Amino acid sequence: MVSKPPPDATRRSEKSRRAIYAAALSLVGEVGYPRTTVEGIAARAGVGKQTIYRWWPSKADVLLEAFLDLSRQAAQEAGQEPYAIPDTGDLAADLKAVLRLTVDQLLDPRFEAPSRALAAEGLVNEPLGREFVTKLLEPQLQLYVDRLRAAQEAGEVRAGVDCRIALELFVSPLAQRWLQHTGPISYDYTDTLVEYALHGIASQPPRSA
Amino acid sequence: MVSKPPPDATRRSEKSRRAIYAAALSLVGEVGYPRTTVEGIAARAGVGKQTIYRWWPSKADVLLEAFLDLSRQAAQEAGQEPYAIPDTGDLAADLKAVLRLTVDQLLDPRFEAPSRALAAEGLVNEPLGREFVTKLLEPQLQLYVDRLRAAQEAGEVRAGVDCRIALELFVSPLAQRWLQHTGPISYDYTDTLVEYALHGIASQPPRSA
Repeated sequence: MVSKPPPDATRRSEKSRRAIYAAALSLVGEVGYPRTTVEGIAARAGVGKQTIYRWWPSKADVLLEAFLDLSRQAAQEAGQEPYAIPDTGDLAADLKAVLRLTVDQLLDPRFEAPSRALAAEGLVNEPLGREFVTKLLEPQLQLYVDRLRAAQEAGEVRAGVDCRIALELFVSPLAQRWLQHTGPISYDYTDTLVEYALHGIASQPPRSA
Repeated sequence: MVSKPPPDATRRSEKSRRAIYAAALSLVGEVGYPRTTVEGIAARAGVGKQTIYRWWPSKADVLLEAFLDLSRQAAQEAGQEPYAIPDTGDLAADLKAVLRLTVDQLLDPRFEAPSRALAAEGLVNEPLGREFVTKLLEPQLQLYVDRLRAAQEAGEVRAGVDCRIALELFVSPLAQRWLQHTGPISYDYTDTLVEYALHGIASQPPRSA
C-alpha cells in the first residue's frame, strides 16, 4: 500500500494538476498541437517543467488526461454518472438523453477549440490519432455498445445486429456535423438520428425480419 | 461567344493544368495546407507562378479544382457517370454500389494524403472548411438526397423522412472511420450500414408507422 501524502501536499498537487490541465487545453486550442510544448504548458500553468515530467511522460499524455478530466467534469455538472449511459428500459429515450448531453458538450467553448485542434492533428498524425481513439473515444463508444447489447438481450434490438457498427448510425453523423461544419447540431437533430437509426428510413420491413 | 484558342495552345494549357493539379495534391499531402504555397505548386508543376494566378485567385481555389478533377477521374475509371447515383429501382443495391466505390476512393493513395491534409485544415480553419464543404462535399451529398427523394416518391422510403439527415446514417460512419481511424472500412461494412439505415436496428416497428 502506498502511504498517503500529507493533506497540504495533496491540495497543492491537486491545484497544480488542475492548472496544468487548463493550460494544456487552452494552449492546444490556441496554437494547435504541433506548437504546444511541455515548456509552454508549464509556463502558462505557473509550474516548473519538471513538475509536468514527474507526472506525465509527454504532452500527448498530459492532453489525454486533461480531456478525460474535462469529460468527467461535464458529466458531473450535468448530474450524470461519468462513463455510463442510463438504462431506463426505454432505449430511444436513453440514447436521446445522452446525445443531448453530447450536443451540450460539443457546443461548450471549453471543449470546442482544444477538441478540434486535437482531432485535426489526429487526421494527419496517425499514431497520435490512434492513441486518442483507443484511450479517449473508443471507451466512450463502448458505453453505447453496452447499452445496445442490453437492449438486444431485452429484445428491443434485432438479434444479429452488430452493436459496434449500429452505434455509428447516430454517433458519427453528429461527429461529422460538428467536426466538418456540414450542418447545424441540435436536440431535434440528434432525436431524429435516434428515430431513424432505430426504425430505419425504409417503408418496407427488412426482408430477413 | 469566346473564340477558341488554337489546338496547340489548348493542349499546352491542358498539360499545364494537369501538372498543376498533380503538384497541388501531392504537395498538400506532403507538407499540409498551411505550408503549401502557390510558389511551391508552380515550382513542382514546372510552370510560372503567373500561370497559376492567371487561372486561380488562390491556393485554396487550385486545390478545390484539383479535388473536383480527382473525383471526376475516379468516377470515370470506375465506369460511372460523375455526379450521379444510379437509379435501378433498388435503393439498397444502388446505395451499396456507390458506397463501395467510395471505399475504393478512400483507400486510393492518390486521394488519401491530400484529402486528410485538407480535412485537418478544415477542422481548425473554419472559413476554408466551410468553403470546401459547400463546393466539394455538399454537392456530393446532394446526390444522395436526390436518390433518396426518388425512392421516397416511389414509396420505398417513409414519407416524412428528412433525406438530408437520412443520408448521414451511412455516409457519416464511413467518413468518421476513415478520417479518425476509428475502425476498418470495407464493402461488408458499408453494406451493413445501408441495411441498418434502411431497416433500423430495433425489433419493433416505429410507433408512428
